[in-house]
Amino acid sequence: MQKGNISVQTENIFPIIKKFLYSDQEIFLRELVSNATDATSKLVTLARKGEAKGDYSDKTIDIMIDQEAGTLTIRDRGIGMTEEEVKKYLNQVALSSAQDFVDKYQDDASIIGHFGLGFYSAFMVADKVEVVTKSYQDDATAVRWICEGDPSYEIGEAERDMQGTDVILHIGEDSKQYLESDEIEGLLMKYCRFLPYPIRFGTKTETTYEEVEEVAEGEEAPEPKKIETEVDNIINNTDPLWKKAPAELTDEDYKDFYRELYPMGEPPMFWIHLNIDYPFHLTGILYFPKVSGKLELQRNKIQLYSNQVYVTDNVSDIVPEFLTLLHGVIDSPDIPLNVSRSYLQADTNVKKITGYITKKVAEKLNSLFKEDRKAYEEKWPDLGVFVKYGMVSDDKFYDRAKKFALVENTEDKFFTIEEYRERIKENQTDKYDRLVAIYTADVDRQHTLVEAARARGLDVLKFEHAIDAPTIQSLEQKEDKMTFVRVDSATPDQLVQKDEEKENLLSEEERETVTILFSGVVDNTGSVEVKPLDVQDAPVQIVRNEFMRRMKEMQMMQGMNTDMFPDSYQVVVNANNPLVKERLLDVEDEATRSENAKYLYQLAKLSQQMLSGAELKAFIERSMKMM
Amino acid sequence: MQKGNISVQTENIFPIIKKFLYSDQEIFLRELVSNATDATSKLVTLARKGEAKGDYSDKTIDIMIDQEAGTLTIRDRGIGMTEEEVKKYLNQVALSSAQDFVDKYQDDASIIGHFGLGFYSAFMVADKVEVVTKSYQDDATAVRWICEGDPSYEIGEAERDMQGTDVILHIGEDSKQYLESDEIEGLLMKYCRFLPYPIRFGTKTETTYEEVEEVAEGEEAPEPKKIETEVDNIINNTDPLWKKAPAELTDEDYKDFYRELYPMGEPPMFWIHLNIDYPFHLTGILYFPKVSGKLELQRNKIQLYSNQVYVTDNVSDIVPEFLTLLHGVIDSPDIPLNVSRSYLQADTNVKKITGYITKKVAEKLNSLFKEDRKAYEEKWPDLGVFVKYGMVSDDKFYDRAKKFALVENTEDKFFTIEEYRERIKENQTDKYDRLVAIYTADVDRQHTLVEAARARGLDVLKFEHAIDAPTIQSLEQKEDKMTFVRVDSATPDQLVQKDEEKENLLSEEERETVTILFSGVVDNTGSVEVKPLDVQDAPVQIVRNEFMRRMKEMQMMQGMNTDMFPDSYQVVVNANNPLVKERLLDVEDEATRSENAKYLYQLAKLSQQMLSGAELKAFIERSMKMM
Repeated sequence: MQKGNISVQTENIFPIIKKFLYSDQEIFLRELVSNATDATSKLVTLARKGEAKGDYSDKTIDIMIDQEAGTLTIRDRGIGMTEEEVKKYLNQVALSSAQDFVDKYQDDASIIGHFGLGFYSAFMVADKVEVVTKSYQDDATAVRWICEGDPSYEIGEAERDMQGTDVILHIGEDSKQYLESDEIEGLLMKYCRFLPYPIRFGTKTETTYEEVEEVAEGEEAPEPKKIETEVDNIINNTDPLWKKAPAELTDEDYKDFYRELYPMGEPPMFWIHLNIDYPFHLTGILYFPKVSGKLELQRNKIQLYSNQVYVTDNVSDIVPEFLTLLHGVIDSPDIPLNVSRSYLQADTNVKKITGYITKKVAEKLNSLFKEDRKAYEEKWPDLGVFVKYGMVSDDKFYDRAKKFALVENTEDKFFTIEEYRERIKENQTDKYDRLVAIYTADVDRQHTLVEAARARGLDVLKFEHAIDAPTIQSLEQKEDKMTFVRVDSATPDQLVQKDEEKENLLSEEERETVTILFSGVVDNTGSVEVKPLDVQDAPVQIVRNEFMRRMKEMQMMQGMNTDMFPDSYQVVVNANNPLVKERLLDVEDEATRSENAKYLYQLAKLSQQMLSGAELKAFIERSMKMM
Repeated sequence: MQKGNISVQTENIFPIIKKFLYSDQEIFLRELVSNATDATSKLVTLARKGEAKGDYSDKTIDIMIDQEAGTLTIRDRGIGMTEEEVKKYLNQVALSSAQDFVDKYQDDASIIGHFGLGFYSAFMVADKVEVVTKSYQDDATAVRWICEGDPSYEIGEAERDMQGTDVILHIGEDSKQYLESDEIEGLLMKYCRFLPYPIRFGTKTETTYEEVEEVAEGEEAPEPKKIETEVDNIINNTDPLWKKAPAELTDEDYKDFYRELYPMGEPPMFWIHLNIDYPFHLTGILYFPKVSGKLELQRNKIQLYSNQVYVTDNVSDIVPEFLTLLHGVIDSPDIPLNVSRSYLQADTNVKKITGYITKKVAEKLNSLFKEDRKAYEEKWPDLGVFVKYGMVSDDKFYDRAKKFALVENTEDKFFTIEEYRERIKENQTDKYDRLVAIYTADVDRQHTLVEAARARGLDVLKFEHAIDAPTIQSLEQKEDKMTFVRVDSATPDQLVQKDEEKENLLSEEERETVTILFSGVVDNTGSVEVKPLDVQDAPVQIVRNEFMRRMKEMQMMQGMNTDMFPDSYQVVVNANNPLVKERLLDVEDEATRSENAKYLYQLAKLSQQMLSGAELKAFIERSMKMM
């Protein structure tokens, strides 16, 4: 066998790097400002070690547009480069100066760059890139480097007073939007909002007025003099909250920072300050937003940073799915800037981060629950959505959450699952020895049914949110001998099935008459049954089989054809309600009898808000006549 | 100035290509099968030109898993490589053999590869890659090439009968899923389902039974013999519908292909076969799915192919936004496989494609409308969603669509916008000379109101879909002097405002009494007005200001706090309805009077399904008592 080395030719690879390495063109600005930040950090390190001596107090990074020249310039006051360094780092693609620096100074905490590729992203938007740089070293001379995007470059001397680097982009014909002030400001706000050094963009003019001296009576007041002052327009917060120690911060600080991130949002319920050093570096703040009453939950509200540089708001590979509903910031230098999905999925650090965040969240919730149950219960309407989502989607979290997950009944009382089992054990264990929990999906719409169940001494839970259907499924799977039925799944006496026979006040013949009467009145979808209920139970009731209803709802959720499961229900006539005898059996006139049956049936439908269209109109007209 | 060339060192760039060039690890399989396809296409071209002589009828590409050896092999029967070619194309990253071939044979229609990078994606999943290849040339010898992912390789002789190439991936520890049959089959179905040569994966065993001979009476029948036959398991359709000429195809063909793409979906309404050669190549079929009744519209159902290789189902940069609701396939070799978003956005071909597709869709709709209006109207409930979406989001499309966009009234009649203006001109022009179109958002819930408006000779349109609110906004902006009001925005006589005075049957004192009576009965959110309406108009009506309601709905859509716009309504008492005199003013007893007012108010709420909870329960109980 012969041996050899695979080779890469610059003229082949360079066009690919320019076009395809970054999925978004706008990334170039993030990359160049990150480089400027690194250059500044390096000078800070050298100064601290005494290797650089000078006044480096101004660490501002300037972003400047020159419309006439068609250039965008990124200027730092950092370490700069000598001619040697320019040749080494700019002329060799993918040779990162960051690695050399880190190797030499063992100081990588604040260096963003990894690959030595970011600089070339400039060619995505620029026809020509000019670099003017001067090293911090005492006898350094300034250098100019020019490249027009093909592999050839020019290098020579330049004039420059201050140490640092200007990267001057001669913006190409197709990318003229990067000469617009609004566009650049938008990108800086997106990617550079929390960078550790001041980013200055444009200048702002503030107008004040000279104070007018007191004027003697009768004299005319002089026009106040306008004073225009140019003020620095620093666009970033160099010291974001998540980098600070939790002990130093007040609740107000956290709320202020939340407002900074989401100016339009309601204040958050509470937050978790993340801070870990081993086995990976991660800081951040996760906020629990208020969600109750929102139709749709917002995802992609967590921003991922790498050393204070914005990376993405799609953190679905880093944060467990159910926690993508949270808001806030995660910052980890261990997640490289140029993340690709395949890399993240395979990365073991990332897997650890996911597990760590889940654990932290569960711990926080558990301590909130234990420390002040009343306050916790007040937050539950918002909090419950996250907890239930987590329980449904993550078995490990289910086990952790069982201690602090709550259910709420129609008396607005809260219980843990264990507490609730205890509460209903005596009264709601059915003949098959199962615990039967009864719930309503809409306490307002199902008011009549809820009251009927409660009048019988049954407890009714509120499960009104979209997440509750899968939550019920999870509870039934994991909880021993426990089943859930909705309040409209049976007449109140049959919600918890017992072996009891009830006396029937109607004869078999009378029951037959009532059945025939209602069969002529109910819609196609209903079937009729005459049963002995309590005297005070409604004369006519409508019930839906729990299993069939759930199947239908599931199919609807999946956008499937639901013809197989029509909206079928059963009409139960209460043989023991006096109206059945008085208004139906005792009425001689056939037409009146049938009209009364229809009215009772319509009242039953109305109690579940099933009356609409022409049927509702007719009902209202009849009610007016009855006045 | 000195001059020089930027250089790229293999040891720097190779790790980046391996890790970051492709956003998904699984892409490796697409790339390697694409290479195999190209190798086969090249041999087909050479055979056609008479430069390759042999039996090349078997063009199958084999995908083989060897669990024990831990390898995944991609085998083609294509052009193969000589030792020279291996050294040239495998040892030089990003040097594409495709370009050389196209330059030489001027035949690029079917070649997928562009960059000469795809092969190296193998190292995303493999520790070691082995290539065994033999050129189609008469005296060729087979070559083996081995590389373990660092830039060094070995090359030597090998044994192989048939021309073509085996790429043998020794799958790495972290990527063991690619040795699972289900995983590979899933990827092949995703990326290679319509490749032009047979892709064979695994072998399938079919079981048949030998026919049993006739048995004489009394004898025992022998067990039938099992026959197991191995059959080729070709997983792809090498000749997909979109590549064929529309003239050759029947409606059934298009429906069958739709079923092949979306086995679970309902049949489509109709389709457009795209076929263009200049200024870019594009073929495809866009289907209009049935959408009526679906809660949510599905996006990302259009698949983008490049020469029959699947690229993505996110076509939002290629297809205008409102057409992402369509289903189907687009195939364009002019869109490179390794598309990145920035590239697509800047690409002028892509911009042309977008415009072309919009135009084609508008032409198709216009011809459907003109050719058979009745059939078109029947499709409108499904079709309307697309058209309205397009009109709202694309001004150019609005102008095109004005000719064939329809509105439907509550008599189920359809009109173009011009036709409808004509229809309501006489009756529904208000005192400000504006055309007033009246609509219902729910023909069932608002039945009573719709009937009241129609009884007055007004026409009512159905605008029941979520897209209708923005559609109304667009129509009001673009149509001259035309305004839209919902049927519950005013009492029927005030929907179209005219200068008419109505006689009032109540004295000022009586009106005062009625106002006070109702003010004690209506909820906080309502305000009371006593007005003379027609005798047959309902005694009490509830109306909502059109502008305020729209503002509130818009804010809800945006998930904003709607406290600023409470669900306020006005209660209008019809002074001329006889019940007001008979059941209120003429009743002596204060309590009965107030109870009657409440009942009339509740009936008004009920007619708009605003009655629920305890209020509904009380209403039902009272109704039962009244029986």
